[in-house]
Amino acid sequence: MKLDTLYGPVHQDLDLVDEAIDALRDVDYQPLAEMLNLVLAARGKRLRPALSLLAGQFGQYRLDLLVPLAASIELLHTATLVHDDVIDNAATRRGHPTANSVFHNTTTVMLGDYMFAQAANFAARTGNIDVIRLFSQTLMTIAKGEIGQDMTAYDTSQTVRQYLQRIGGKTASLFVTACQGGAMLAEVGEDGVEALKGYGYNLGMAFQVVDDILDFVGDEQEMGKPVGSDLSQGTLTLPSLLLLDRYPRNNPIGKLFAHRRREEYLGQAVEMIRQSDIPRESYQMAESFAKEAEEALMVLPDNPARRTLRDIVAYVLERRS
Amino acid sequence: MKLDTLYGPVHQDLDLVDEAIDALRDVDYQPLAEMLNLVLAARGKRLRPALSLLAGQFGQYRLDLLVPLAASIELLHTATLVHDDVIDNAATRRGHPTANSVFHNTTTVMLGDYMFAQAANFAARTGNIDVIRLFSQTLMTIAKGEIGQDMTAYDTSQTVRQYLQRIGGKTASLFVTACQGGAMLAEVGEDGVEALKGYGYNLGMAFQVVDDILDFVGDEQEMGKPVGSDLSQGTLTLPSLLLLDRYPRNNPIGKLFAHRRREEYLGQAVEMIRQSDIPRESYQMAESFAKEAEEALMVLPDNPARRTLRDIVAYVLERRS
Repeated sequence: MKLDTLYGPVHQDLDLVDEAIDALRDVDYQPLAEMLNLVLAARGKRLRPALSLLAGQFGQYRLDLLVPLAASIELLHTATLVHDDVIDNAATRRGHPTANSVFHNTTTVMLGDYMFAQAANFAARTGNIDVIRLFSQTLMTIAKGEIGQDMTAYDTSQTVRQYLQRIGGKTASLFVTACQGGAMLAEVGEDGVEALKGYGYNLGMAFQVVDDILDFVGDEQEMGKPVGSDLSQGTLTLPSLLLLDRYPRNNPIGKLFAHRRREEYLGQAVEMIRQSDIPRESYQMAESFAKEAEEALMVLPDNPARRTLRDIVAYVLERRS
Repeated sequence: MKLDTLYGPVHQDLDLVDEAIDALRDVDYQPLAEMLNLVLAARGKRLRPALSLLAGQFGQYRLDLLVPLAASIELLHTATLVHDDVIDNAATRRGHPTANSVFHNTTTVMLGDYMFAQAANFAARTGNIDVIRLFSQTLMTIAKGEIGQDMTAYDTSQTVRQYLQRIGGKTASLFVTACQGGAMLAEVGEDGVEALKGYGYNLGMAFQVVDDILDFVGDEQEMGKPVGSDLSQGTLTLPSLLLLDRYPRNNPIGKLFAHRRREEYLGQAVEMIRQSDIPRESYQMAESFAKEAEEALMVLPDNPARRTLRDIVAYVLERRS
């Protein structure tokens, strides 16, 4: 399934979201324009804005409201990536240089703040106070998830349960908001909103689990970032937690953390995970979330949007980057 | 003029703003609660929330709307300070340790994001879309001002004009929003809103100019931070720009920047400014903004709120920290 055709009935309308976001580059302050050009050039999968538009298809599909929401969601996501990359000191993202690799960390933090403000501004354009509040609550949840990730860095005693809670906040919450916000603006009935929220949560969980697997088994070229990057930052994700669980003694992760950033142990951990059945076991977790996501869709009417939402679940599991 | 009595008719109501902000410490995630305790413990002057309440006194003084706005403004301000302190690597703020001195920089960036979200959430509680948009636009303006400050760091060719533009974005914009937002919620007429915006802008400019003077001539104990801290970060403010202008050759600032962070030249620059009439000349600039702020008030009815707004102008000029 290619991204070009994945988004079915909302595929064309996503261009409007791109246009809305692209218009932000047109600022009167040259250094800021350059920074925005850099961070907005590396176009993502547009998965989250697609979810907002698709959710809107189950009610009154009003693009004048859904496009600002979708732009808001995508910008919020991009702004958190900008702050993430400062934090992780990442050099590349989606195969492009990160803002922090080109500009000062300090300036990049402010760039992220500027983008949050633009995202909030788009949310305000929906004119819907509930959607606006949902937006700010989601940013809270994401920040809390990120703080949790930082607080548990290098902590080998953390559990899979804590991991799931963390990715629920850090990732799935925005998928929920993308779906819920779209459904609210389209005035989808309560059952529909609940179904789309359930779909969004489970899709987001599956998405992040797959992301964390790809960080170990993916192709560096395709992913546009080095393998094992989470672990090298001290972030323990599902595959590494399973490796710790499986080899409590003499585990390279313990050595890696004891010595911090030692290339040798990082490579060893990555290899052990790649050669074990941990990726398969981790995929099972992703598949079970994916199944829940599909089931959540059952109460919705069978239309092209619902079929597309199903396709997206399949795509999220199959993707290689 | 003591802060205790400065805020006249809204003095008591400011406690409601404090309560609203204090309630945020009550989060279910312990590490976040600790971080919030730290950054919210160092209570500021509450100048900006006071302005919102005072502006509200020229119309329908609805505390159910004005308190969330005032809390939003104060939190937005505190969140930018949290990010500022990460950027400046500052150890103390208002005499308390900064968040970044206690927690990782990385966690502190996310703490700032969390606080922005809480601020946006308070703005949403006003239920007023125009106020919400004003809020997000102000965050954009502040971030732009901060980026400008970072971009012009160590640039001795910048002008006083550029400096004024920068502090207009970085500082005065939030004073404008505090006044404008309060006036909008109280449904003050158009002329009143314009007057309060003009007041807010000029007060904010005077405030920042005085801040920049105090960074050189202030008492470290009273200020709770070291003298010359802006200059040591490469930030050129009015007194240092005047010093550069006055001594184009053999200026310690040029040497300081050439050698970066050299204590000797920093001390020399601070001493030269202290012993010159540059503080007086800089105060004249602050006074001219203060005068404009007072004049902006003339179209407003003469009531206790207006008298308090005048008192605040005097306080901003006289303050020592």
